[in-house]
Amino acid sequence: MLKFYYAPGTCALAPHIVLEHLGLAHEAVRVDFSRGEQSSAPYLQVNPKGRVPVLVTERGTLTETPAILLYLAQLRPEAGLAPLDDPFALAQAQSFNSYLCSTVHVAHAHRRRGSRWADDEAAQSSMQQKVAQNMAACFELIEQQMLRGPWVLGEALSICDAYLFTLASWLPGDGVAMDRFPGVAGHHQRMLDLPAVQRAKTLHQ
Amino acid sequence: MLKFYYAPGTCALAPHIVLEHLGLAHEAVRVDFSRGEQSSAPYLQVNPKGRVPVLVTERGTLTETPAILLYLAQLRPEAGLAPLDDPFALAQAQSFNSYLCSTVHVAHAHRRRGSRWADDEAAQSSMQQKVAQNMAACFELIEQQMLRGPWVLGEALSICDAYLFTLASWLPGDGVAMDRFPGVAGHHQRMLDLPAVQRAKTLHQ
Repeated sequence: MLKFYYAPGTCALAPHIVLEHLGLAHEAVRVDFSRGEQSSAPYLQVNPKGRVPVLVTERGTLTETPAILLYLAQLRPEAGLAPLDDPFALAQAQSFNSYLCSTVHVAHAHRRRGSRWADDEAAQSSMQQKVAQNMAACFELIEQQMLRGPWVLGEALSICDAYLFTLASWLPGDGVAMDRFPGVAGHHQRMLDLPAVQRAKTLHQ
Repeated sequence: MLKFYYAPGTCALAPHIVLEHLGLAHEAVRVDFSRGEQSSAPYLQVNPKGRVPVLVTERGTLTETPAILLYLAQLRPEAGLAPLDDPFALAQAQSFNSYLCSTVHVAHAHRRRGSRWADDEAAQSSMQQKVAQNMAACFELIEQQMLRGPWVLGEALSICDAYLFTLASWLPGDGVAMDRFPGVAGHHQRMLDLPAVQRAKTLHQ
């Protein structure tokens, strides 16, 4: 059976939604970030990066949200959560998810994880002051250029929707009102209506 | 014909190596970062993100290095640059490339692109001071946990190798001696011996 390590408030919500949506049997293991469990010796045996999510499969362990999302979609190709038979469409999906992990998630992380990139508190405070501006710029681009509607890739729900939903849920905490982006806000509400999203959100409370 | 936008010193070197290795006919368009061309109105029509690489195909435009790499591998599946028929192995390849784009590239970018995340120069300077430490930590993880040898995924050359080669080439400029990581250094030399790498590097000078 799959084993899935997650923590509330992290991007692990995205694959968790997909696990629930696909009805994949799995053991969910909550990692307690408030006690720094992600940096404990036992957890570093699971994931030397000290991060979540982690998916443990019969073949081995997977980390990095875009990779886990693609793997889950491939476990149930009939569910159509990724355009697996169309190389260009699949690359577009991967492009969207790469943007989220390399730019949007990173923009967000400068609010509470600035110590990754600078040691002094003044610099970390300076980073925090720019988070709202950066997140707004990212979501402006998503709104104008990427989100086709009703779902990210158009008519079909995909792994990209679970990921966008997760990162969009960080906007209020980052000081950006989601309703500045009507397309993103509408997408968020459609996601909230899905039973899999409701179940995953409950587990992440 | 494919059209490929790149700039020297950027991660566009990775897909450029793959284009050369696969012998894919393409027009290479150099974007002049020294004149800020990536932020010019004409270029923002090509890529609203104002970044490279960009691959223009008959189907449309692709951005984000991991996505372009996957697409190129799929154009010539017989070359075996990605384990396309093995979902778990493909997810491992995507996991490696996701780590490079979301963590390693980001660690590097804090040296010269700190203005993305903080406006004041003191904070940017503070970020610069941590770049060597962060890049070394990333490559320690790559050396110990990820690089199987002789290539990233083991016996077969893949898109991951072009990407690792590109980011490893940034180590000296980031203040990290590559020979601290014998596996990475050996991999780098094997890549330098490939004609496709030599051709792409010449174009990026």
